[in-house]
Amino acid sequence: MTTIKDVAKYAEVSVATVSRVLNKKGYVSKDAEVAVLKAIKDLNYKPNSVARSLYHKTSKMIGLLIPDISNPFFPELARAVEDVALTYGYTVVICNTDEDKRKEQQYVDALKQKYIDGLILSTNQLSIDDYKSLHVPLVALDRSISDSVPIVTANNFIGAQQATEYLIDNGSTFLAHLRGPVGVKTADQRYKGFKEVVEKKGIAHVVVESEFNIHHAKKTALDLFERYPSIDAIFASSDIMAAGVMKAAKQMGKEVPTDVQLIGFDGIPLGEMLTPSLSTVIQPIYDMGAISTRLLIKQIEKQPLETLHYELETELNIRETTRSEQYE
Amino acid sequence: MTTIKDVAKYAEVSVATVSRVLNKKGYVSKDAEVAVLKAIKDLNYKPNSVARSLYHKTSKMIGLLIPDISNPFFPELARAVEDVALTYGYTVVICNTDEDKRKEQQYVDALKQKYIDGLILSTNQLSIDDYKSLHVPLVALDRSISDSVPIVTANNFIGAQQATEYLIDNGSTFLAHLRGPVGVKTADQRYKGFKEVVEKKGIAHVVVESEFNIHHAKKTALDLFERYPSIDAIFASSDIMAAGVMKAAKQMGKEVPTDVQLIGFDGIPLGEMLTPSLSTVIQPIYDMGAISTRLLIKQIEKQPLETLHYELETELNIRETTRSEQYE
Repeated sequence: MTTIKDVAKYAEVSVATVSRVLNKKGYVSKDAEVAVLKAIKDLNYKPNSVARSLYHKTSKMIGLLIPDISNPFFPELARAVEDVALTYGYTVVICNTDEDKRKEQQYVDALKQKYIDGLILSTNQLSIDDYKSLHVPLVALDRSISDSVPIVTANNFIGAQQATEYLIDNGSTFLAHLRGPVGVKTADQRYKGFKEVVEKKGIAHVVVESEFNIHHAKKTALDLFERYPSIDAIFASSDIMAAGVMKAAKQMGKEVPTDVQLIGFDGIPLGEMLTPSLSTVIQPIYDMGAISTRLLIKQIEKQPLETLHYELETELNIRETTRSEQYE
Repeated sequence: MTTIKDVAKYAEVSVATVSRVLNKKGYVSKDAEVAVLKAIKDLNYKPNSVARSLYHKTSKMIGLLIPDISNPFFPELARAVEDVALTYGYTVVICNTDEDKRKEQQYVDALKQKYIDGLILSTNQLSIDDYKSLHVPLVALDRSISDSVPIVTANNFIGAQQATEYLIDNGSTFLAHLRGPVGVKTADQRYKGFKEVVEKKGIAHVVVESEFNIHHAKKTALDLFERYPSIDAIFASSDIMAAGVMKAAKQMGKEVPTDVQLIGFDGIPLGEMLTPSLSTVIQPIYDMGAISTRLLIKQIEKQPLETLHYELETELNIRETTRSEQYE
């Protein structure tokens, strides 16, 4: 492999001069610069990225802290981060923290050692000071970390409103909402969107708290169907929860969408694979990951940001778990 | 931050001596060593990993080349690689190659620059020489690269046999197999397992080639049901394909499992979320990722391997798309 010494020898200059050219720092005569650039080209010299890291204290690596890559929301997100990072010459270190404070601290320490250039946070077990101890730019993805950290989210409130309106417009008169855990901001926003529409339109409804997993959602829905057999539409706070509702409906002998309409939230690939395929509020997951990464790289490259809060639009995707006006 | 100079000053030795202690190379007097170790402890000095990379030409990073993290087979695999790597102090760089030769080459070049310590290959668009140009240990995961590269796979042949036997034992007499693309080794092995059982037992059957995606599988299954309405069991070469078969069955008015039994392959989370939940041959995806990572780290640390071919057992998981003898 060609080394910096080979380049210096070929260009008939000192190693220090080559280094000044590579790092664009310090005085180099025009002749020397031309000679060095020619040597680099002739010898096909690639400055070693590890050496550069040591000098610049950067690594062209960014960290992505997520709860768990095997949770179906995150693969598409990780893919987007990776794609955009690659375009700008960065690689991505994915850290699965399982929302465990100790694991998260362990990763933050490891990333510090590697001169990571920036960090995308989709989990927030530590304090803002812990993240800031890395002394690198941060972006919060779907989680709020601090007012000073740029955040990318979807408009959960409006997405939930649209779903609720659709269920009512297509003939349902007794709606249930399986909400996500109280205190989780995305779940709270979806709940508020649902609530505002049913109250404004004076529609009978019931709200129960569940968890973002299929088993809990199935159990919650079974209980709901038993207590209120006349429920004719459910808005679930996630697609995974909606898959649990479908199982409950089947077990209770209810047809989807004839007896009960159903809309989920997220737009993960699962929805399309279910039979009937799931109507859902699609979050632009890929775009959220891509925009977060661009925001991070802008900060790394010391470019100004236009705003600190990017809220992306959701899209109501009507598939087969809702009735369509045209068939009525 | 504490630097190596601070350590040298505190220990009253030269920087070169500290470096020799850190790198366990060259002669250092016992007194000097004790003084250095005490200084490291007292000052809480953490040798910088980038500097170590430059010296040792290692980075404590491993690469994972996969087609696409948003393909549902890979998140659990990536998770396992990440978990094991972390245990041994390594971080993982995930590379999505989309089975594109140019992208794969781009990644291999980037990894070279970063002194990656080893590479797990779950994609193989390049030649073995391209991968070997990295001069680091390799492990092949579910893809065969070369006889000299350790490989980890599941026993696809036996898994397929067990699925086929189960369908026959539970009363089906006309079986179809939706096989994956000819030439893909895992698909070929599953096909062979199916074929051996139906031929040995003299059971009527039909085999059609499809792709590992839901739309193609649905289309193929619709065509099959039209041509052979009396098919009463389908063994699909993947869970995603099986989800497509369920859509086709619904469209043709066939009940699963009453009219048609169905078994998939892989054991991805999707299977459990379908209604009815999917009977499938579970590959130990997490274990495959974990074992690959251990094999890679063993090689990096120059420990001997017991064998070059690790074939893990699959497990037939009977859920709701098959009839169970006890209910007959």
